[in-house]
Amino acid sequence: MKALVYHGAGKKAWEDKPRPTIKESTDAIVKILKTTICGTDLHIMKGDVPAVTDGRIIGHEGVGIIEDIGDAVTNFKKGDHVIISCITSCGKCENCKKAMYSHCEKGGWILGNLIDGCQAEFVRIPYADNSLYPIPAGADEEALVMLSDILPTGFECGVLNGKVKPGDTIAIVGAGPIGMATLLTAQFFSPAEIIMIDLDDNRLNVAKTFGATQIINSRDGKAVEKIMKLTNNKGVDAAIEAVGIASTFELCEEIVAAGGHIANIGVHGKSVTLHMEKLWSHNITITTRLVDTITTPMLLKTVQSKKIDPKKLITHHFKLDQIIEAYETFGNAEKEKALKVILTS
Amino acid sequence: MKALVYHGAGKKAWEDKPRPTIKESTDAIVKILKTTICGTDLHIMKGDVPAVTDGRIIGHEGVGIIEDIGDAVTNFKKGDHVIISCITSCGKCENCKKAMYSHCEKGGWILGNLIDGCQAEFVRIPYADNSLYPIPAGADEEALVMLSDILPTGFECGVLNGKVKPGDTIAIVGAGPIGMATLLTAQFFSPAEIIMIDLDDNRLNVAKTFGATQIINSRDGKAVEKIMKLTNNKGVDAAIEAVGIASTFELCEEIVAAGGHIANIGVHGKSVTLHMEKLWSHNITITTRLVDTITTPMLLKTVQSKKIDPKKLITHHFKLDQIIEAYETFGNAEKEKALKVILTS
Amino acid sequence: MKALVYHGAGKKAWEDKPRPTIKESTDAIVKILKTTICGTDLHIMKGDVPAVTDGRIIGHEGVGIIEDIGDAVTNFKKGDHVIISCITSCGKCENCKKAMYSHCEKGGWILGNLIDGCQAEFVRIPYADNSLYPIPAGADEEALVMLSDILPTGFECGVLNGKVKPGDTIAIVGAGPIGMATLLTAQFFSPAEIIMIDLDDNRLNVAKTFGATQIINSRDGKAVEKIMKLTNNKGVDAAIEAVGIASTFELCEEIVAAGGHIANIGVHGKSVTLHMEKLWSHNITITTRLVDTITTPMLLKTVQSKKIDPKKLITHHFKLDQIIEAYETFGNAEKEKALKVILTS
Amino acid sequence: MKALVYHGAGKKAWEDKPRPTIKESTDAIVKILKTTICGTDLHIMKGDVPAVTDGRIIGHEGVGIIEDIGDAVTNFKKGDHVIISCITSCGKCENCKKAMYSHCEKGGWILGNLIDGCQAEFVRIPYADNSLYPIPAGADEEALVMLSDILPTGFECGVLNGKVKPGDTIAIVGAGPIGMATLLTAQFFSPAEIIMIDLDDNRLNVAKTFGATQIINSRDGKAVEKIMKLTNNKGVDAAIEAVGIASTFELCEEIVAAGGHIANIGVHGKSVTLHMEKLWSHNITITTRLVDTITTPMLLKTVQSKKIDPKKLITHHFKLDQIIEAYETFGNAEKEKALKVILTS
Repeated sequence: MKALVYHGAGKKAWEDKPRPTIKESTDAIVKILKTTICGTDLHIMKGDVPAVTDGRIIGHEGVGIIEDIGDAVTNFKKGDHVIISCITSCGKCENCKKAMYSHCEKGGWILGNLIDGCQAEFVRIPYADNSLYPIPAGADEEALVMLSDILPTGFECGVLNGKVKPGDTIAIVGAGPIGMATLLTAQFFSPAEIIMIDLDDNRLNVAKTFGATQIINSRDGKAVEKIMKLTNNKGVDAAIEAVGIASTFELCEEIVAAGGHIANIGVHGKSVTLHMEKLWSHNITITTRLVDTITTPMLLKTVQSKKIDPKKLITHHFKLDQIIEAYETFGNAEKEKALKVILTS
Repeated sequence: MKALVYHGAGKKAWEDKPRPTIKESTDAIVKILKTTICGTDLHIMKGDVPAVTDGRIIGHEGVGIIEDIGDAVTNFKKGDHVIISCITSCGKCENCKKAMYSHCEKGGWILGNLIDGCQAEFVRIPYADNSLYPIPAGADEEALVMLSDILPTGFECGVLNGKVKPGDTIAIVGAGPIGMATLLTAQFFSPAEIIMIDLDDNRLNVAKTFGATQIINSRDGKAVEKIMKLTNNKGVDAAIEAVGIASTFELCEEIVAAGGHIANIGVHGKSVTLHMEKLWSHNITITTRLVDTITTPMLLKTVQSKKIDPKKLITHHFKLDQIIEAYETFGNAEKEKALKVILTS
Repeated sequence: MKALVYHGAGKKAWEDKPRPTIKESTDAIVKILKTTICGTDLHIMKGDVPAVTDGRIIGHEGVGIIEDIGDAVTNFKKGDHVIISCITSCGKCENCKKAMYSHCEKGGWILGNLIDGCQAEFVRIPYADNSLYPIPAGADEEALVMLSDILPTGFECGVLNGKVKPGDTIAIVGAGPIGMATLLTAQFFSPAEIIMIDLDDNRLNVAKTFGATQIINSRDGKAVEKIMKLTNNKGVDAAIEAVGIASTFELCEEIVAAGGHIANIGVHGKSVTLHMEKLWSHNITITTRLVDTITTPMLLKTVQSKKIDPKKLITHHFKLDQIIEAYETFGNAEKEKALKVILTS
Repeated sequence: MKALVYHGAGKKAWEDKPRPTIKESTDAIVKILKTTICGTDLHIMKGDVPAVTDGRIIGHEGVGIIEDIGDAVTNFKKGDHVIISCITSCGKCENCKKAMYSHCEKGGWILGNLIDGCQAEFVRIPYADNSLYPIPAGADEEALVMLSDILPTGFECGVLNGKVKPGDTIAIVGAGPIGMATLLTAQFFSPAEIIMIDLDDNRLNVAKTFGATQIINSRDGKAVEKIMKLTNNKGVDAAIEAVGIASTFELCEEIVAAGGHIANIGVHGKSVTLHMEKLWSHNITITTRLVDTITTPMLLKTVQSKKIDPKKLITHHFKLDQIIEAYETFGNAEKEKALKVILTS
């Protein structure tokens, strides 16, 4: 089969690889129908994720058809259409039993990382019963690709951890794909104000059409001042970090109200300065989380009942074998006005 | 009346001051029966709390008798014995209605800070109905002095925010009075292991008699290593910071398990380094809190039913007019083996 | 002044009464701008509420202007526009401190019940600081009359107690004003399906325009069967009772899914049969609640940010002195297609 | 092998049965070391549980050694010592993923009910990875038999659902084995008062030694009156039903405080009368639950750390082949002063 293979920092190829087969009785082999590229994949390609080694097939998102299953798989059968979760869950370790699938002792984020992933014609999914989700008949499968990673990530790490509730004033720092997924799913809980902060005016304008009530371009260094003015000097109930650098995290520290939440989504490469000399008495809560994908079934219901339209996040379409070109587009997101790209087999 | 008065950094005196009188209809005047000294009072005396100005009567803890009440006070009458809360709550602002009394718009921590305090023969308590608690007949009033600040602080900021639950393994960093109050109240939730960490062997030995299951003197720099060994390399479910400096906070970052809690109690004067490059994916929760004293009624029930014995925290007794001497003792806590001192009028 | 006075079962009059004056320093006198009639008022008029005695001014909802305040009131001043809460809260008893204002030791539901109420030109509000809410400049005051009782009742007793969450399937039994308020506020949490059940086709059709995804007229006795079909024989995540009779409560018992919630809002006059022989093993939760009105500030934010339009609930308008006529209309709700009526002074 | 077999109402025999073998790759065969008899087994033997048919091996509690495992079992190996959970969980259905193992689509309570159980020399355990728990080296295995059913049942259905918290006043209605397990596990949360209610003075006296602070023999019909006196007419924060008949459930309705919880544990054969005409406005919560056994790992930690001593519940010992005699003793619990009996192979 064909697959996108990582060959060290800066090197990738769409090339022939052996088609995966069942290794364990709990595996499934899925034929990829649609997949996408994650910001993390760009980091991998730059060589920023040392765990990923030469020869690895990349990708941890997608929908497909069950091609083969191991003997112990009971939730699925050949021919079923499924959503692939970016998180593999064995369903039987201590962490899985606590619903912290991200830290599954045998899984977690392994697809396109420690084992071969989804940017390929076929993929092997370990612990299929717990790591795949059935697609209802008639569902829009393109929309459901957003359930592999981006929607549960924005929802679990940002919205749920931020304890967003009706009437709240929240800020989302970063209007990239994850920030946008947070913006869409935050509206499940009817906050009064959603302030979107970014450096890219195009993304901010898109955010406005997605439901942001205020947009702030932070390029002028006045984001804190503007938010304090908007909130009557109280700050926001939840500040959601969707970038992953020190300055955006520290912006969240400055704008969170007493009693409020800082919910981190961003993948950080460096430490940040936590201003405990100010925050120790502010009754705040800071959370971090690698997505557990425990809300995938809930999110699927919201998509099916049209409470959310994840297709809004999709800006570009490619054939699967155009993936090198798709990386080019996604890698120049600001110029290309790209959020999520869809690759169809 | 006599009172302990702050006269600028390093200067204090037990001197004559006018006896307080009712200013607002919601005030009460309380005759102090017993009071104590807080670590914060030592900071004030060093000049570390700029809000406290020359002439201020210090102290925010104590029990006493109602001497006079304003017209609008209905929960108390002259002669009632009361616990004074370190937090003044108006009961009717936005934050009080959210049970965040620490950020009461007209109160919060003001006693012995922005208004005259409890290290005196009499004290004026604003919003008495919401800021005093009735002492049941026959209660041990000395024990109840610990309900003014130290027990709710350890319990709310440490134990409740740390989400301590049966079977947990927790660590308390700092075996001073607040750490000890945390140790006592943590046992309300039956954790399996309580690891106490400090630099002072005497305090650690006392902690053992108070219920710590493991004690670690961190002087040798091997605390992290020892905790990882004790926890099978998982870390602790809750790491409770009861010191207020960067190194102890950062120790908590190193020992918290995936999915665990860092509950900060310490008063910090400087920022700390938050290792988001490691923690972003560890599903942890960090909390800060100025005590709200919302659990005072609950804690009173636990004292009355002998689920906890707060008198264990009291190491020294003085007459109220020996307060300068008491400060001397409390200020040399390690040498004097002091936890809490009681001053009786 | 003029007021609507109860004179025993079946007897009421719009007649002269002395204008109320400040009795306690925590009181406010409010000039009524707009008020409404509650289903409970109809019960009172029938003589079903023995606590209400001859001579009582009825009514517990409305908006108005502060005409006078007692010395201890600090949140309001003369001329302020306010929402009157149906629940009076002292803010300082044990239950108020637990946010259970409905059981305030000195308040609770007393307006138009144990003390004179709002269907009058003026009303005395005890504990004004905790029992009134400020109206923001420019707000639509007619909409805010719905915040006195009906919206917090539907939201707290139905939606919050029913733990409604994104993707849920819920049923609301009863499409009267309270059921409709529940329907509107349930959408704050984005359930996938909202099934509305009633005997009146007109109300059901209105419910559809308010956001119900399914409507069921239960007259044919097939409601259970239909709901089981709609839910793939699982039942609903939350069954919300908004009628107050045994048959509707028992319908909720039949349709609640394993792990689901029955949230009772209805005022019951008789006991119901609880089928523990079936439900003991179904992991369900049943809640009852007299509204606490603790969510009034939150609801105000949702109205101001247009997440909800409470004016949808208003079907009829009268002048305040036409109140007898308004009772006639509201008392024949089905025929008159009435939900809430507004009386304007 | 030998096993206790049900042969219709009133008929049982200790007789030869084929030794179980692996049927599915997720099975384990466990050699029973110790088992016990549950109150439910007595009901089965009377013919009250129609799902149990002639020829069924009874029993759903015990500890043992893994004798054989299927290919897909990874948490255990031959020779491991394990606790058998009374609830079988597949770990991959919708309900298991919600941590509601009691309603597992392929499991739930099936052992000694729909499939052969534990009162035998060997038992087949489906979904072994999720339905067995490893026994730490050196643990007291007799104590751990109490983790199969009785401790998680008392803890989850009674204590957790009753939201027991420090300082609470709670009542447990029924001092049989389940009520006693509730009494022991309630103390994890340090309630101030635990009132135990029963008809049997011996059991009440035992309850006192187990930590009950008040005991009430309800034979005189004055239990409500006594509890109201003890609680200053407020009632209890949690009323836990551990019997399963209408009169005890209705007692709970009478003694629950406003804002309180009724947590049902009892297995009911008939409906009860729910006094909604009184309770609709009392802000109470009623819960039902078939134990999910999700707290088994937590309870194991509390046993290992000696926060609880489950052996207190064991009153009698027999050899496994004396099981008919053991049933005799357990079936005459009051006369024999029996709580739990242990059968050792």
